[in-house]
Amino acid sequence: MRISILILALFAAVPVLADEGMWTFDDFPAATVQKTYGAAISAEWLDHIRLSTIRLSNCTASFVSPDGLILTNHHCVESCLAELSSKDSSLIDMGFLAPTRGSERRCSTQLADVLVGMDNVTQAVAKAVAGLGVKAANDARKKALTELEQTCELASAKAKTGKLKCQAVTLYEGGEYFIYKYKRYDDVRLVFAPEADIAAFGGDPDNFQFPRWSLDFSMLRAYENGKPAKTPSFLNIDFDGPKAGELVFVSGHPGSTQRLETRAQLEFERDVSLPSSLLRGSELRGRYIQFGSVNAANEELVEAPLNSLENGLKVRRKLLDALHDDALMARKSDDEKALQAVSQRNGPDPWAAIDDASTRERALYLPYTFIEAGAGFNSILFRFARLLVRGADERTKPNTARLREYTDTALPRIEQQLFARVPVYSEVEVMTLSFSLQRMREWLGPDYPLVRRLLATDSPDTLATRLVAETKLDDPFVRKQLWQGGKAAIQASRDPMIELARLLDDQSRALRTQFEDEVEAPISAASEQIAAERFKAFGTHVYPDATFTLRLNYGTVQGWTENGTTVTPFTYLDRAFDRATGVSPFKIPPSWLKVKDQLDLKTPFCISTTSDIVGGNSGSPLIDTEGHIVGLMFDGNIHSISGAYWFDAAKNRAIALHPAIIREALDKVYGAKALMAELSAR
Amino acid sequence: MRISILILALFAAVPVLADEGMWTFDDFPAATVQKTYGAAISAEWLDHIRLSTIRLSNCTASFVSPDGLILTNHHCVESCLAELSSKDSSLIDMGFLAPTRGSERRCSTQLADVLVGMDNVTQAVAKAVAGLGVKAANDARKKALTELEQTCELASAKAKTGKLKCQAVTLYEGGEYFIYKYKRYDDVRLVFAPEADIAAFGGDPDNFQFPRWSLDFSMLRAYENGKPAKTPSFLNIDFDGPKAGELVFVSGHPGSTQRLETRAQLEFERDVSLPSSLLRGSELRGRYIQFGSVNAANEELVEAPLNSLENGLKVRRKLLDALHDDALMARKSDDEKALQAVSQRNGPDPWAAIDDASTRERALYLPYTFIEAGAGFNSILFRFARLLVRGADERTKPNTARLREYTDTALPRIEQQLFARVPVYSEVEVMTLSFSLQRMREWLGPDYPLVRRLLATDSPDTLATRLVAETKLDDPFVRKQLWQGGKAAIQASRDPMIELARLLDDQSRALRTQFEDEVEAPISAASEQIAAERFKAFGTHVYPDATFTLRLNYGTVQGWTENGTTVTPFTYLDRAFDRATGVSPFKIPPSWLKVKDQLDLKTPFCISTTSDIVGGNSGSPLIDTEGHIVGLMFDGNIHSISGAYWFDAAKNRAIALHPAIIREALDKVYGAKALMAELSAR
Repeated sequence: MRISILILALFAAVPVLADEGMWTFDDFPAATVQKTYGAAISAEWLDHIRLSTIRLSNCTASFVSPDGLILTNHHCVESCLAELSSKDSSLIDMGFLAPTRGSERRCSTQLADVLVGMDNVTQAVAKAVAGLGVKAANDARKKALTELEQTCELASAKAKTGKLKCQAVTLYEGGEYFIYKYKRYDDVRLVFAPEADIAAFGGDPDNFQFPRWSLDFSMLRAYENGKPAKTPSFLNIDFDGPKAGELVFVSGHPGSTQRLETRAQLEFERDVSLPSSLLRGSELRGRYIQFGSVNAANEELVEAPLNSLENGLKVRRKLLDALHDDALMARKSDDEKALQAVSQRNGPDPWAAIDDASTRERALYLPYTFIEAGAGFNSILFRFARLLVRGADERTKPNTARLREYTDTALPRIEQQLFARVPVYSEVEVMTLSFSLQRMREWLGPDYPLVRRLLATDSPDTLATRLVAETKLDDPFVRKQLWQGGKAAIQASRDPMIELARLLDDQSRALRTQFEDEVEAPISAASEQIAAERFKAFGTHVYPDATFTLRLNYGTVQGWTENGTTVTPFTYLDRAFDRATGVSPFKIPPSWLKVKDQLDLKTPFCISTTSDIVGGNSGSPLIDTEGHIVGLMFDGNIHSISGAYWFDAAKNRAIALHPAIIREALDKVYGAKALMAELSAR
Repeated sequence: MRISILILALFAAVPVLADEGMWTFDDFPAATVQKTYGAAISAEWLDHIRLSTIRLSNCTASFVSPDGLILTNHHCVESCLAELSSKDSSLIDMGFLAPTRGSERRCSTQLADVLVGMDNVTQAVAKAVAGLGVKAANDARKKALTELEQTCELASAKAKTGKLKCQAVTLYEGGEYFIYKYKRYDDVRLVFAPEADIAAFGGDPDNFQFPRWSLDFSMLRAYENGKPAKTPSFLNIDFDGPKAGELVFVSGHPGSTQRLETRAQLEFERDVSLPSSLLRGSELRGRYIQFGSVNAANEELVEAPLNSLENGLKVRRKLLDALHDDALMARKSDDEKALQAVSQRNGPDPWAAIDDASTRERALYLPYTFIEAGAGFNSILFRFARLLVRGADERTKPNTARLREYTDTALPRIEQQLFARVPVYSEVEVMTLSFSLQRMREWLGPDYPLVRRLLATDSPDTLATRLVAETKLDDPFVRKQLWQGGKAAIQASRDPMIELARLLDDQSRALRTQFEDEVEAPISAASEQIAAERFKAFGTHVYPDATFTLRLNYGTVQGWTENGTTVTPFTYLDRAFDRATGVSPFKIPPSWLKVKDQLDLKTPFCISTTSDIVGGNSGSPLIDTEGHIVGLMFDGNIHSISGAYWFDAAKNRAIALHPAIIREALDKVYGAKALMAELSAR
């Protein structure tokens, strides 16, 4: 019995054969797919898909040629486009096509990881924490995971695979632990991106909407030793796309779901964290928009962070709506009661333990969020300063005694962030830092000791202005020197941003320890217990919550019914021209208007499918039974957002770009002959 | 038995003698005050206080001399200060002291109303709706109230009282109806205001906080026939203030509470209206702040609306917190169950009727809010246009057939708003209008027919810019002509803002009718039923929810205990100087720094009391048993905000300015000798 079927049988009036589930590749329900759809999914097919799928920093992608060519979304490369832009020339606005391989441009903070192996280490972790109290177990578990990562990386360096990145993965809220092994490409270059006006056509108003007409794709290339990487595992594109009703798969990295969390955890989201982050985010949105309204240069400076913020706001707004749906909360309660009823535990009540921890979390939320989680110091330069200050401390400790984000495994990513030549715009920095200091003063109160100390003779504005003006951390060379200088360099530094990070650090670490001991530790322990109960009750045919690790799901090309109206699963190019107003975000760029007569206006544009995906799946290949790409996932409909908490088979739909519009664009609009040839070679 | 005592007895562990209640003057519990505090409150005392209390547009005030001198808060005259300011000279920043009576400056939109009579018309209303269905009763009730107002005004014009303003008042959610009769002063002039830096010392961070040091007072004067009004009913100020523990009264106009509403109504607030308005308000806050950050001139343009917005945000944020308090919701449920248990009704269930109406309200909320309630058209110029377009239509109808806000009784206030020479700043208008159009497109969706129509070839920004640039409604003369020209003038107008208001009107009115019939009518009918049950169960010793009509309450000068720490009820001047950072909002202005040596730093500054007040009570006199002013209410502590839903006797505290600091300021800082003489004459 699957949890999906249990939930449906108990509570919902939707078809029993919901295509729900974000399955790990080692536990994909091939038998169910065979039974339901008559399709045979082999182990080789699974391996081929897995080895062709890529994890980017916050997205998914796939290899689409043997020479390392990568297909992903436009919005997944937006920070790369911003990094390669200057105040005078915006690649986000203009798009980019490398005329030759030699002119492909490196995205300095982009990594591309391919999952080459998965080791189940649940037993080893259980052994490490056996017999320990809640707090000690939490510390021991982290230490064990760091050790397992370290051992794995050392072993891989000696093996014929070559050096791999090894990362600990927690599945089923602690029901299982794995070490995932990745082949990492750290030289990733920009090959092609369309103009934002067509890539994000419809902008924030159309985000999470379907029907849809956003050309949300771009191309990168992985390099090794300065040359295009050899990538024998890659996916061919079937430019004709799928048929309505066809069985399709999505391979990718759903970021985070909370379907297995308890009611108390969801109530914390609903009552505390979502309202607070929505209010802060909404105000910041207003500041970005107003900042950008001054002139075109300002508008470009905030374009990328504003897009990302608006996407997050829409998600969180809909998450809050979902949590205000009494039916969802009632279902969650009933689900908990059903599990409690069949549970045969004799120990303490894990649900009650989570209730208690959530109460502590409410009390700790504001200082933790503003000080340790950084909501009071919204500034790229401050984040550099904190990485430098903490990194200097942590690197003096043995690997297993460090904060998890500073272990040897994690350091290369930190160094890449610190050393990259990314532009930092001081006007934007002053705005975001001043904003966050102001809100920290508002929410913690002017008499909170740290607030009082920072703002004794300053306003948030004067403090932010001075810090940004006087710090030298906008210079990657200065950052590199401070990093390499270690603790001595940090202690000697008179850089005001470093001084600020140093000033906060004891207090901030104390909040973190308190949070880990009083909230994280009891929740981890209780969640492991609940996971064990769930395994006992329902066997292993349950899928774990999303954790930005590789998953595969199956579904079909399908529309849905909205307020009695049928939404069909394909859109076509002609309607994009009808929808255009001439003004962004409904503006079709000149490159398209110029060739409109030559375009086939009946070209399919977007596809809706029943695939169970969430944020992090952006850029995922939509795959047919033959293993060909028949679409590029870039969004979900508005109902998909509640997928964080449950899968609504009747209304939750994923949105993919149709491959035919990719061909139409590359062929007729951008004249990207070499790229088309590379994609079409068989 | 009072509802307060019922609630306390059933559910709460606070002292039974809570000083709760916003009592009408005709039903003040003098016997309870006598019994509890040994103070005799006579009918004459009540009349004197009532006739000395003033209702301003959104605040309370009182007469403090026989020559019409008025004491109220600084924040209550902020819009007047803004109106009398220009881009180059801000009375908000600089303050104002009229050197002579002749230089007192008129606040063109300020009215001052004094409640001179109250007629209970419950029977007449009951007769008008008897036997009617829910929707017909709702219409008939409004018509009856308009008729009663009209009759009252006509009668007063013939009586020796002279012409009065008569306004229908709904008490107990429809348990009682009254006609309140006001003497109106429509020529109100500014006499004195301190600089904003001291009046709002602590700004938004300290708002709703105590201890506190904000010199939040100002003075106006009522005029009649161009001369200072003769006001024989006025209150003397006792500059020594009250003692700790002393019995004190507050006379004023609490704006709105929802203590008698049902659980379903509060859930609507919690899940729908508060989150939505908080998100929109937070973004607008960000836009105002960023707009103001460009230069000092911009900052002044948005100072008044930003202050008012931030106050509203803090209130709504804390209201949302209160509604997320399970204890409050459980108490509400228990309270409902207790009433249902003793109720002997045979008809339909009024609580279920409100549940149904709230479900309809959720469905209607977005279009109603953006289109009819104006959240999609946030612009002073648009509000003028709508008043003109609707007013032209409505005035062609018989008085009782009009929308209630366009009856003959209401027209003078509309005309005052339309004809006043208030400055309109086009950059601010473009910003707020563009913002609200953008959010309307976001929340209703780009395919909502009205959105599609307005933004077919425009962005919110280009549309707002054009409308504001081309309309002539910023000119009061143009507005007056259009108003006086009536329907013909409106139909002939090519002003784009008028055209927009005309374009919307049918749709907007349809939404209003739907809202009134499907939400308002059933809630009114059910609320009347519940009120009747409550009277039956608990007699008449229940106080009605606040409705921005005159109330009196009693309490004592008292601090409270916050997390185990005692907060004492007085603050003193010296701590204000300690608290200053030199930067707004913690900046003490030069006028005070200059004379610091001459000031008595031990002067009491603010007072906390147990008075049960909410927004609308700002500017209320705090009165001792002798009828002297011993404080000026201007705020409550953070716990007072939940007073919208219940009175927490242990923590809810009101905050008043101490009269000694008023004397210190007028005497030593502002050298306002004539004013002090007028205030001190006996």
